[in-house]
Amino acid sequence: MTAYTATVTVRLKHGVLDPEAETTKQALERLGFELDSLRSADRFEIDLEADSSGAARERADEMAERLLANPTIHDYDVEVDER
Amino acid sequence: MTAYTATVTVRLKHGVLDPEAETTKQALERLGFELDSLRSADRFEIDLEADSSGAARERADEMAERLLANPTIHDYDVEVDER
Repeated sequence: MTAYTATVTVRLKHGVLDPEAETTKQALERLGFELDSLRSADRFEIDLEADSSGAARERADEMAERLLANPTIHDYDVEVDER
Repeated sequence: MTAYTATVTVRLKHGVLDPEAETTKQALERLGFELDSLRSADRFEIDLEADSSGAARERADEMAERLLANPTIHDYDVEVDER
């Protein structure tokens, strides 16, 4: 077994309204910052042990499908690194 | 002016309790997943225009200091890519 860290990034699908990001953008603009747009995402860093990096990715993928992301409104991606 | 995307990742400092991450970890374990630990972080993807990648990074850094992160409890890092 090898120790891996899987990073799952969960973001809203294109076209899904993101009022939190809109509010953050407006707050930055009120502070005088110039920006074109802002998107927010959740990031989960998961330490796990697996036989191979492929097995770690598969498990993280299943975690995203079953709990971390809502497939109706979210896209996600998974990165795996040895730790 | 060049178009950049600055990605600001905001995570809790080591030692700061993260009840949301703890709850997520327990929910994954109840679903039968094995994992050692889980950390959650917020990620902001900011599209902006700047004269150089250094200037874009500096502006994103200031956004993190002033609004996106709370320096008492958060660490953050900034990545800048041309878009």
